[in-house]
Amino acid sequence: MSDVKLEECREHIRSQLDNVVDFWLKYSHDTVDGGFFTCLGRDGSVYDKLKYVWLQGRQVWMYCRLYRTMDRFHKPEILEAAKAGGEFLRKFARVSRASGEWKCAFCLTSDGKAVKVQRTIFSECFYIMAMDELSRVTGDKDMQLEAEQMMEQLIHWVRVDSSGLGRPQLPGDVPTNSMAVPMMLLCLVQQLTEGQGQDVVQKYKELEQWCVQQILHHVQRAGTAILENVSVERTELPGCSGRLQNPGHALEAGWFLLQYSAERGDEKIQETAISKFMELPYQCGWDKKHGGLFYFLDVDGHCPTQLEWSMKLWWPHCEALIAFLLAYSQTKKPELLERFFEVYDYTFTHFPDAQSGEWFGYLTQEGKVALDFIGGPFKGFFHVPRCLYMCERILDDLLANKDTIV
Amino acid sequence: MSDVKLEECREHIRSQLDNVVDFWLKYSHDTVDGGFFTCLGRDGSVYDKLKYVWLQGRQVWMYCRLYRTMDRFHKPEILEAAKAGGEFLRKFARVSRASGEWKCAFCLTSDGKAVKVQRTIFSECFYIMAMDELSRVTGDKDMQLEAEQMMEQLIHWVRVDSSGLGRPQLPGDVPTNSMAVPMMLLCLVQQLTEGQGQDVVQKYKELEQWCVQQILHHVQRAGTAILENVSVERTELPGCSGRLQNPGHALEAGWFLLQYSAERGDEKIQETAISKFMELPYQCGWDKKHGGLFYFLDVDGHCPTQLEWSMKLWWPHCEALIAFLLAYSQTKKPELLERFFEVYDYTFTHFPDAQSGEWFGYLTQEGKVALDFIGGPFKGFFHVPRCLYMCERILDDLLANKDTIV
Repeated sequence: MSDVKLEECREHIRSQLDNVVDFWLKYSHDTVDGGFFTCLGRDGSVYDKLKYVWLQGRQVWMYCRLYRTMDRFHKPEILEAAKAGGEFLRKFARVSRASGEWKCAFCLTSDGKAVKVQRTIFSECFYIMAMDELSRVTGDKDMQLEAEQMMEQLIHWVRVDSSGLGRPQLPGDVPTNSMAVPMMLLCLVQQLTEGQGQDVVQKYKELEQWCVQQILHHVQRAGTAILENVSVERTELPGCSGRLQNPGHALEAGWFLLQYSAERGDEKIQETAISKFMELPYQCGWDKKHGGLFYFLDVDGHCPTQLEWSMKLWWPHCEALIAFLLAYSQTKKPELLERFFEVYDYTFTHFPDAQSGEWFGYLTQEGKVALDFIGGPFKGFFHVPRCLYMCERILDDLLANKDTIV
Repeated sequence: MSDVKLEECREHIRSQLDNVVDFWLKYSHDTVDGGFFTCLGRDGSVYDKLKYVWLQGRQVWMYCRLYRTMDRFHKPEILEAAKAGGEFLRKFARVSRASGEWKCAFCLTSDGKAVKVQRTIFSECFYIMAMDELSRVTGDKDMQLEAEQMMEQLIHWVRVDSSGLGRPQLPGDVPTNSMAVPMMLLCLVQQLTEGQGQDVVQKYKELEQWCVQQILHHVQRAGTAILENVSVERTELPGCSGRLQNPGHALEAGWFLLQYSAERGDEKIQETAISKFMELPYQCGWDKKHGGLFYFLDVDGHCPTQLEWSMKLWWPHCEALIAFLLAYSQTKKPELLERFFEVYDYTFTHFPDAQSGEWFGYLTQEGKVALDFIGGPFKGFFHVPRCLYMCERILDDLLANKDTIV
């Protein structure tokens, strides 16, 4: 592959990232109540004012990451927006529980009143991501401590006692290793330890290894499939839930593992990440007829029960781009770059919206836009800019002939 | 419209109902653990063994109703299946709460262990439906008493104190009149009072009127739209939730109101049912390009945030068939029969599956089968047979020149 093509690709990604940042800077800030609107139409109009805590946290994280690591985004307006978002989160996201524990709400009214609390850990995860990253640009030690305290509580819920999440214990609700949980915790460990001293790295070392092992337990069927949910004994679960595959999620786990393997120089994990968490989801998940990645599949070929199973969503394509480009940059195997360009071609001919400069999120199986908004309850300022940001950095390093860990 | 066409239609519906009943009798009964499997492929194979309480209740109700009111289904195997289903429900559906209240689980393992409890009233509703209808065929007074006791608790949750449902009270979670709640309660009142003496009718009279009023509050925008969620003060709610329309659900409310109006001889309600709860959802909800009813719409024309908004689901079409045929039978207005046949043509050319004799549940906007199973977590033995059963009875009466209340 010639450097010319890689350079063209980088320039395209670079200009897309600029467009995307511009869109969210221009339209998503709530200058009255603070925080971010995420339900945005193609013209930037706000069609719903609810504030989803995890999207708030993701936007704070993304702004800070861009501000901290890319010169052209090291601008006061980005820092100020991140700080305002962080302030909104600290003020309103946490709801106290009778148990004395803090739980984050799932969504808030425009002026910060809790509307819904989910019985999961994901709002908390992005609260931690936001606070840790924000404290890195502001130097606020209290905030970083707060992130670590929330992290302790999260670890307690996941590994010791989940009753604080508020789900009743039911005899038929067997403990499950859902891939999202170790993935999120691994991501948080990477966030909290990045650039920190050995004391912090050591503190989370056992947890990090536990996360990696938990993720690897999702390799099932004698190494031929990644399943989204497995038992805590590492065996397959019965029914649809046990047979569920989410190719985009497996690809995301793939690049999380690649980052881990690069930090540790662990070639075995690198090999597993590529052959199991990238090749398998690509083989089963790529739509041979219409192109693009399916959202859900059943490993036995049954029809998934999720109504949206055959739709093409933006974020699995974002994960696939990062996964294949990072895998190529680490191995220089040309077939991985070919995969990257196959996903790239589908993605950039289908998702970007010329009117807004941002991306559509939801296409039909055939590739037609099915939902025509830019931001929504599940699509904020996160997957698109994270993907463009990471791909740009990897391409920078590739073109400069440097290895990338990201 | 000639009687020949109505007669053809009745024969077609009659044979469809026979096919559908055959399919579920043949494939859905769990002869080992009791209860019904509902996740069934086209060949009747069970692809997931979870038992959804509301689908169990619906199947018991439907079997009993067919057994009790249609000669050709007055067969021991249908009665036995209903009794076995009822036994499974009584044994396993209820989970006790520390508060002393009984809550029904949402789904159970194959052998009856609770997997999930929803913080809503719907599992309980179909538990009551099942118990009341089953007690009518078995004469079991205890069972009918149990249905009434569960009903009392339900009324308490809806009208006095919802804390027993287990949802935390949150400052941003404003009380909402969600149309499903008064619809379900009205349906239960009609179930519990059917054929009963004046004491029972009187007992539920105030509740019934409250339900009707609550449903009527969903007529919004100066009578030009039915909105799915409104405030308890009868005003529009902000955001996507406030603008949400569910045409199939509005049509279902329409025929519930028609039944009420027929019992009371209330012409004003009949007129509202037809002009507001049938004409409006049909006007906004019918896909002029591809045919069929959209699942969700936004009254201001924004794109709904539900990924499946543009899909064509089986049950809204079932509700539309009942609504327009009942409206025609009550008024004899030819345009209502035309509407019925428009929905009928789309429905019977798209949903029935020749292989299984049952119906597919989920089509793309363009009318292609999107999920190819027959039964699933949300599609059991209920909407299709209830629609065919009611339409057959209405057509019987029409052809015999009798008025129908159903």
